[in-house]
Amino acid sequence: MSRFWSAIVDGLDPYVPGEQPKLPNLIKLNTNENPYPPSPRVLDALRSEAGDALRLYPDPNSDALKQTIAAYHGLESAQVFVGNGSDEVLAHVFMALLKKPAPLLFPNISYSFYPVYCGLYEIDYREVPLRADYRIDPSDYCGPCGGIILPNPNAPTGIALPLSKIETLLSEHPDSVIVIDEAYVDFGADSAIALIKRYPNLLVVQTLSKSRSLAGLRVGFACGHADLITALERVKNSFNSYPLGRLAQKGAIAAFADEDYFQHTRRAIIASREQLCTELQELGFSVLPSTANFIFAAHPKHDASKLAAALRERQIIVRHFRKPRIDQHLRITIGTPQQCEALVGALREICGDD
Amino acid sequence: MSRFWSAIVDGLDPYVPGEQPKLPNLIKLNTNENPYPPSPRVLDALRSEAGDALRLYPDPNSDALKQTIAAYHGLESAQVFVGNGSDEVLAHVFMALLKKPAPLLFPNISYSFYPVYCGLYEIDYREVPLRADYRIDPSDYCGPCGGIILPNPNAPTGIALPLSKIETLLSEHPDSVIVIDEAYVDFGADSAIALIKRYPNLLVVQTLSKSRSLAGLRVGFACGHADLITALERVKNSFNSYPLGRLAQKGAIAAFADEDYFQHTRRAIIASREQLCTELQELGFSVLPSTANFIFAAHPKHDASKLAAALRERQIIVRHFRKPRIDQHLRITIGTPQQCEALVGALREICGDD
Repeated sequence: MSRFWSAIVDGLDPYVPGEQPKLPNLIKLNTNENPYPPSPRVLDALRSEAGDALRLYPDPNSDALKQTIAAYHGLESAQVFVGNGSDEVLAHVFMALLKKPAPLLFPNISYSFYPVYCGLYEIDYREVPLRADYRIDPSDYCGPCGGIILPNPNAPTGIALPLSKIETLLSEHPDSVIVIDEAYVDFGADSAIALIKRYPNLLVVQTLSKSRSLAGLRVGFACGHADLITALERVKNSFNSYPLGRLAQKGAIAAFADEDYFQHTRRAIIASREQLCTELQELGFSVLPSTANFIFAAHPKHDASKLAAALRERQIIVRHFRKPRIDQHLRITIGTPQQCEALVGALREICGDD
Repeated sequence: MSRFWSAIVDGLDPYVPGEQPKLPNLIKLNTNENPYPPSPRVLDALRSEAGDALRLYPDPNSDALKQTIAAYHGLESAQVFVGNGSDEVLAHVFMALLKKPAPLLFPNISYSFYPVYCGLYEIDYREVPLRADYRIDPSDYCGPCGGIILPNPNAPTGIALPLSKIETLLSEHPDSVIVIDEAYVDFGADSAIALIKRYPNLLVVQTLSKSRSLAGLRVGFACGHADLITALERVKNSFNSYPLGRLAQKGAIAAFADEDYFQHTRRAIIASREQLCTELQELGFSVLPSTANFIFAAHPKHDASKLAAALRERQIIVRHFRKPRIDQHLRITIGTPQQCEALVGALREICGDD
């Protein structure tokens, strides 16, 4: 603690992102990136935007991108907010919509950035444990609260809630904002965007990092009633007028224009996931039912941290969380078929003596 | 005000950036962009980074960029913080270093985002009026305070403080952070980065938007004692792990590698500014002494808002602030020699009857 710091700084417990190793030839299955490159149309758009116009500020309101996202999801532009990755969007959501007298509710186990945002904005919160089968049960979220946020599908479990259960939450808490964080929704779950017209208390957050293969570009967005979007815009315009540069805006627009590529790659990942699940189960793993681009798996006879270390020796990195209830699981990103095969081969070797 | 908003949202008074008109063929002298394109090396770097690797997250710590900036300015990497434009850097500075029991001091007239950040983070502040000649006088900043922030050169006046006067502030306030916001420093003022080794309470903020022609890419940075940088990193990592995408990091590194281009373009702008000042003075304008890429000018016989409107009719846009003390001034960005000539021609026509 330095005498120069604001009082809040010392007590912060910053988020620790998954490792981004700078070594070549790794099979990197630790941060849920897409194994396929971005659409060629995105790369073309970026290369053509990399010109003289970069001397000029971008559109501070990202109007063209908002129109693109709105049209894609059957909404109005005023129902769309965009930001520098969904992490920035979520930060503004916590400040603008979730700082309330009553505590915010979110699952324990879930995205570990949520309590970090609460620390940053001094938001009171209560974590609601997952059930024994690692599922979220809406009946555990009864009673007054300042808001609810949950990923759907949840991370790192990969398990999705059906929309009917999200609707239960929305109708039981008409005066609280319910945020559905859909970073992984395109890999098999149903988006709550379909419910926005009926629930003014619903905000849905998505990202281009996963299903659009653009983790390196940093674009996320939120959809909801225009009143919720207005709150986000007010905070954003008090923080940074220009969160998305010219390249990010143009690249993101191009991503939504290539629906064929999007469908093709997300289906390939879903197919790889189903095959990987089967193969890991054959090796004795229990695998939670995933609708994400990762699986969460445990082996009854092999310690997860030892498995992770043994994989690393073979140039394969997966994510292991040293946390209660999940320290015997590995979160494994779905790679290409070749990467999945290499993973299964390595695990067969490691677990081979069973 | 919606019942869904956090309490802070309703009271915010968001920043309003300069207009980004979508019309072609404008002479755009309203937002202090560089009239020259980014270095060709930057564009090459961006085009070659627009590839498959965009599917991967960027380095969350921007290590290579920090090393580049540190080497350029004779610092250590641990003395450098980077963000999504200097506006984001400033937002984190306000939260991490300027939220104190005693009020923050900054000039009135100055960058109008400062009171907005104070509103966002509920920071007590006191504005210190400029002297009658629009100068900042360090003797007006005596006594206890929670910190001081000022642009050098100041905006929108363009007037710079000499380093000796900044040193006075630093040594008179050894327990407060003094932030020098050097968005425009490369156009003729002296950077306070030279003082960092001697003053642990000094933080210097710069941007690539102006002198590096990269307003569209969104990269800013701060330099100071490692303790100050640690506070910024703690807040940043509680807000968004990845503020700079892969393109922003690569493009910014390339910008610092092309020193010749940087020197050539900034000198061209300085030369154009000196000539423009002379020509406007010949038309009867009083022009404040600028070391920025803009000038702040007033005409004794012509109302500034009418001048701005008359210029706009001629497809030239400049910035006019409807604020006390400066509503008879125009802030005019330095364009290319051709753009400056067009401006002078238009003003000669408009003021021609004198």
